[in-house]
Amino acid sequence: MSPNPTLAISNRLRSTPFTGRVKQHGAKAFTVYNHMLLPTEFASLEEDYWHLCEHVQVWDVSAERQVEVKGVDACKLVQWMTPRSVANVDVGRCVYAPLVDEHGFLINDPVALKLADDHWWLSIADSDVLLWAKGLATAGKLNVSVREPDVWPLAVQGPQAQELMARVFGEVVKDIGFFRFKPLPFNGHLFNVARSGWSKQGGFEIYVDDAHLGAALYDALFEAGDDLEVRSGCPNLIERMESSLLSFGNDMNMNHTLLECGLDSFVDLTLDVDSLSIDALRAQQQRGLDRKLVGLAIASPDGPAPAAIDVATNFLLSSHGESIGRLGSQVWSPRYGQQLLTVMLEKAFFIDPDGENTLKIQMDDGSHQAAMVMNLPFDFKAAGILAQQ
Amino acid sequence: MSPNPTLAISNRLRSTPFTGRVKQHGAKAFTVYNHMLLPTEFASLEEDYWHLCEHVQVWDVSAERQVEVKGVDACKLVQWMTPRSVANVDVGRCVYAPLVDEHGFLINDPVALKLADDHWWLSIADSDVLLWAKGLATAGKLNVSVREPDVWPLAVQGPQAQELMARVFGEVVKDIGFFRFKPLPFNGHLFNVARSGWSKQGGFEIYVDDAHLGAALYDALFEAGDDLEVRSGCPNLIERMESSLLSFGNDMNMNHTLLECGLDSFVDLTLDVDSLSIDALRAQQQRGLDRKLVGLAIASPDGPAPAAIDVATNFLLSSHGESIGRLGSQVWSPRYGQQLLTVMLEKAFFIDPDGENTLKIQMDDGSHQAAMVMNLPFDFKAAGILAQQ
Repeated sequence: MSPNPTLAISNRLRSTPFTGRVKQHGAKAFTVYNHMLLPTEFASLEEDYWHLCEHVQVWDVSAERQVEVKGVDACKLVQWMTPRSVANVDVGRCVYAPLVDEHGFLINDPVALKLADDHWWLSIADSDVLLWAKGLATAGKLNVSVREPDVWPLAVQGPQAQELMARVFGEVVKDIGFFRFKPLPFNGHLFNVARSGWSKQGGFEIYVDDAHLGAALYDALFEAGDDLEVRSGCPNLIERMESSLLSFGNDMNMNHTLLECGLDSFVDLTLDVDSLSIDALRAQQQRGLDRKLVGLAIASPDGPAPAAIDVATNFLLSSHGESIGRLGSQVWSPRYGQQLLTVMLEKAFFIDPDGENTLKIQMDDGSHQAAMVMNLPFDFKAAGILAQQ
Repeated sequence: MSPNPTLAISNRLRSTPFTGRVKQHGAKAFTVYNHMLLPTEFASLEEDYWHLCEHVQVWDVSAERQVEVKGVDACKLVQWMTPRSVANVDVGRCVYAPLVDEHGFLINDPVALKLADDHWWLSIADSDVLLWAKGLATAGKLNVSVREPDVWPLAVQGPQAQELMARVFGEVVKDIGFFRFKPLPFNGHLFNVARSGWSKQGGFEIYVDDAHLGAALYDALFEAGDDLEVRSGCPNLIERMESSLLSFGNDMNMNHTLLECGLDSFVDLTLDVDSLSIDALRAQQQRGLDRKLVGLAIASPDGPAPAAIDVATNFLLSSHGESIGRLGSQVWSPRYGQQLLTVMLEKAFFIDPDGENTLKIQMDDGSHQAAMVMNLPFDFKAAGILAQQ
């Protein structure tokens, strides 16, 4: 759908403590994520991208809602939901913990924060994990409370993120390891601060749990970062595709299994854990996959033609009219001079190690271009794709 | 947030089989509802409103996703979720069945369609009921399958809806009673057709379960309805507020109990049903309410001033600075010459039968206006508010 339409605002699409600042700073477009506004563009997608890779940005990622699981059965419930072993996770640690149902299908792919032995936050992607966790806890008669606390994460991302964070929270931020968090004071209030975020440019996420301090924190980051060229930003489609950061709902969804999404590196199916999905995942691992999430790279400034995408199913069609697989995300990478796509590739098109790994796609300019099928994460160097700028 | 921002489109915000037609017909704005695009405006909110009340419109309400519950324990699971008794619902019947958790809080307020003794569709508002139902079924070890089938409801609403539907589906549509449905053929395919819809102007909902027939059905309705002045439309904020049709996420949400939302008329708490919420609701009924969803009517073309709404909590403030309650929806009613609002009113402001039922609110034009507190549904006649046009 192009050009982008207008978003009709209502209270159902929740604002955040930072929405006022984000508007002042020129957010041009929003998406809706977990029933909440999430900005998607400031100057332009490409200008935001280069700025993010070179400087530092403040992101309103309040839409990463927290699902709090607390009580004596907290670990048990978290382990039911994810096939990743959480038994030995330390307090103060974040773990990427895909949630999977009893048939092996994805429910969400949160980062789980362990706040105490009986206390977790799941920092979720776009689906109501609250209801999944509550449903399991209720019918499973677990001794646990499940709720969405008032927490609005604010991310600070980019190569200058650590410098900016140190100016506001002190040098102590430098001691926070990757995917670790610490409670740090701001205006007399402790916020959990994690070294994490949805880019590969480095940075932190501040778990703001007092709405009335939101604007003050936002302003403090801008006052401290003026000489660092700090800007408001947001998760950037170009950066996250180049970095192979998957988006639940776009690249993968509830119709896809954890293994089809290539997330097996985040679980150990040989472990003995009491998790809903473990048997189904082991069985699928035995059977093998009928489809798999891959990347495509096409050396063309145009995207695939509308005729190359089935309107009803969102399947990408080859120039021969074959259904290659469901199209996930698509973006032009100015760095590599390629259209980058994710596709849930059908088995017939799996990469043959000894043969062809390109597919022909009809492009928007009428040409037919070769799309290189690449395993994820994208390895541009191995594929001989060089940065152009 | 005004003016409305741009909506950034991605595959995560699902299109529908009708999105192409809706765009061609001039949809100006969309919202996101159940991770899917839902149009909100065509000519203008007010022009759409008058047209809906006088003619007939075709609405893409695909975002009313279906949660299918099927199997020997289907009735048991549906009854767990809603305190409304479903034991004696006939096949072919629709029932408004609020879903409520074990503490009495709302999960969603779907219309439930009974397709067979062991087969239900929940036609849901904006939350992932799929996950709630799956969670309960999984941990409760129920013999039932829970899934989101590929069904995209298309509504035909307005005083000429029956005439239009009869031209496309035959005179048989006239035999469909209110909140009943029948399978009727279109192009050789049977669609469930219900006399229902999210307006009080009369009409039908067609449960389209073949994406490839969507455009043909849309076109057939327009070909048949040319002389009826058929237009594309959508749920209309003015009409639904005047008709007191509540919107989950706007007027009420998961922080509100069924009783606080005034939905007690849809359940019978004296019945002996095995439902998660029944004990909590009975206890709250005994205790009495600390807040309640009401309407406000303000005879002013302006809305409340930004200063009259707490940014962090969305509470409406009286001219004395008191927090009256959380603001739900708000719209200008051209018919009644009133601003209509919904508010989850705090107990201190409950209507005193013998006393004052107005609150003073600061308006956008700087004036302080009397807001008449009204029980829902709005009874404009009883309140002495007359239609002006």
